[in-house]
Amino acid sequence: MAEFLFERLCLIGVGLIGSSVARAARAKGGIARTIVAHTRRPETLARVRELGFADLVEADAGRAVEGADCVILCVPVGAYAGVMRRIAPHLAPGCILSDAGSTKGSVIRDLKPLLPAGVQLVPAHPMAGTEHSGPDAGFAELFENRYVIITPVPGGDPAAAERIAELWRRLGSMVERMDAETHDKVVAIVSHLPHLIAFTICGTADDLAEETREAVLRFAASGFRDFTRIASSDVDMWRDIFLNNRDALLEMLARFTEDSHALARAVRYGQADFIEDRIRRGRRIRRGLIERKQA
Amino acid sequence: MAEFLFERLCLIGVGLIGSSVARAARAKGGIARTIVAHTRRPETLARVRELGFADLVEADAGRAVEGADCVILCVPVGAYAGVMRRIAPHLAPGCILSDAGSTKGSVIRDLKPLLPAGVQLVPAHPMAGTEHSGPDAGFAELFENRYVIITPVPGGDPAAAERIAELWRRLGSMVERMDAETHDKVVAIVSHLPHLIAFTICGTADDLAEETREAVLRFAASGFRDFTRIASSDVDMWRDIFLNNRDALLEMLARFTEDSHALARAVRYGQADFIEDRIRRGRRIRRGLIERKQA
Repeated sequence: MAEFLFERLCLIGVGLIGSSVARAARAKGGIARTIVAHTRRPETLARVRELGFADLVEADAGRAVEGADCVILCVPVGAYAGVMRRIAPHLAPGCILSDAGSTKGSVIRDLKPLLPAGVQLVPAHPMAGTEHSGPDAGFAELFENRYVIITPVPGGDPAAAERIAELWRRLGSMVERMDAETHDKVVAIVSHLPHLIAFTICGTADDLAEETREAVLRFAASGFRDFTRIASSDVDMWRDIFLNNRDALLEMLARFTEDSHALARAVRYGQADFIEDRIRRGRRIRRGLIERKQA
Repeated sequence: MAEFLFERLCLIGVGLIGSSVARAARAKGGIARTIVAHTRRPETLARVRELGFADLVEADAGRAVEGADCVILCVPVGAYAGVMRRIAPHLAPGCILSDAGSTKGSVIRDLKPLLPAGVQLVPAHPMAGTEHSGPDAGFAELFENRYVIITPVPGGDPAAAERIAELWRRLGSMVERMDAETHDKVVAIVSHLPHLIAFTICGTADDLAEETREAVLRFAASGFRDFTRIASSDVDMWRDIFLNNRDALLEMLARFTEDSHALARAVRYGQADFIEDRIRRGRRIRRGLIERKQA
C-alpha cells in the first residue's frame, strides 16, 4: 500500500482554494509526498515561498506539472483553456487532472479536447469558500465538513474518480457525485444567482440620490448587510463563473424574476394570503437547512 | 430632576422588540419606574408573567395604557389602526405615543387621525432584530450600538421627540432623525427588498424539480444560506411591512429588476467589463460598510 495517495500533487493557482488544499494536505498527512505550487504573478510567487505551504514553487506552468500524478486547477474557470494549452504537453501519462472550479460544464468543454492520451480528467467542485482571496486567506480547515461535488466525465476511469474522491475525504470533505449539467443548475440557484442578486442590489443602492445613498450606508442594519458580505467576493472568479454558467444562471434568474413579480403583484393588490404563503415557504426551506446542519 | 425618564412605560406587544425594550429598561435603569406589558394572547400573557421582565402584565389594551406617560407600540404595523381604536380613549393627556415599527408613513397615516388632544405622537424605528420572535427571543443588549430612526410629525412637540430620543440613547442606541418618506425609501432598499428577494428565491428553489430541489437543500453552501437566514423571519410582521411600505418597496424592486436585467444581458452577450464593474461596485459598498463598522 502506498504511503501517500499521490507522489507529486501540483496546484495550478494558490489563492484561497489552492493554498487551503496545500495547507490541508500538509496538516492531514498521507495525501502527497511532494506539493508543487504554480502561480504566475511574481509577487504571489514570493509570498507563497514565504508562507511555505508548498515543497516547490514554480513560475512556469509546464514545468510545474512535470512528473505530477495529480494536477488540480485552482484558478478562475475562465483561465482553464489558456492554462491547459500550456500544461497539456507536459502532463505525464497516468496523471489525474482535476480542478476546484464552480462551473463544471464549461470545465469539461475547455479541458477535454486538449486532454493527452493516458491522462484522466476528474472535474470537482469543493463547496467551500470565504469572502477573502489570495494565498494568505487559505487555511487547513476550509474543507472540513463541506461538500465536494465530483462530476465524472462519461467514459472516464472510475478508479481515477475514486482517487480524487479519496483526496477530498482525506481533506475532511463529504463527497457527492452528479452529472455536470445537474451540478451547474444546482449551483446556479444555490450560489451564482444569490451572488448576481447581491452584486446588483449594491449597484441599485449606489445609484440612489446622494442623500438616500448616504443613509443607506449608515442604516444597512439587517438584510442588506448579509447581501454585501456575499458581494465582497473576488472579481475575476465571479466574472468567470457568470460567463461560464450562463445558461443555467439566466434560466434561474428568469424563474426568480417571474416569482418576484408575482410577489410584487400581491403587494400591489394587498393579497395578504399570497404574501404569507411566500414567507412561510422561506421559513420551511430554512428549517430544512437547519435539519441538515448547513445553516 | 426626575429619577426616571418615565413614570409608567407601557409596551403594547412583547415579542422580540417589546420584550427587549422591557429587559433593557430594567438592565440600564433610570428609564421607567413601572413597566406595563400588554399582550392579547393568553399563552403569551402567561409566559410574560413567568419571564418577569414587566412589573404589570395586562390583557386589556385600554387598561394597560391608563396612567402611562409613554406608550410604545411593538406589534406588527398592520395592527396599529385596530390597537389605536382600543387605546385612544384611555390615553392620558401628556402621554407620548411612540412605536417600533419598520414603516413610518403608514404609522402616521394610521395613528394621527385618532390621536386624542394632549397626546404627542413620536414614531420611531429601532434598526435591530434577529430572525427569532416572541417574548423568549428578547434580550437587553439588542439595541446597543444600533441606529434608531425617529420621524417626528410636522407640528409635533420637539420636547416629546427629545424624550423618545433620550429613551433610546439610554437603551444604548444611536438616534437619527429624518422625515417619514425618506425613512421608508431607505428601509425599502436596505431591508424590505432584501427580505422580499430572500422569500422569493426560497420559493423559486422550492419549485424546482424534485431531484434538483433535494440537491439544492444539500448544497446550500455559500450565498443561499445567508438568504435563508433572512427568510426565516416572522410571517405577520413581514406581511404587514410589505403591505405598509408598498410604494417605496415596489419602486426599489423595479429599480433592482432593471439593474438585474442589465447584468443578465451582459452575461448573455459576454460583456466582461460590465460584469466586473458591477462586482467592483458591490465590493466598494461593502468597504463603506466596514469603515462604518456595520458589517
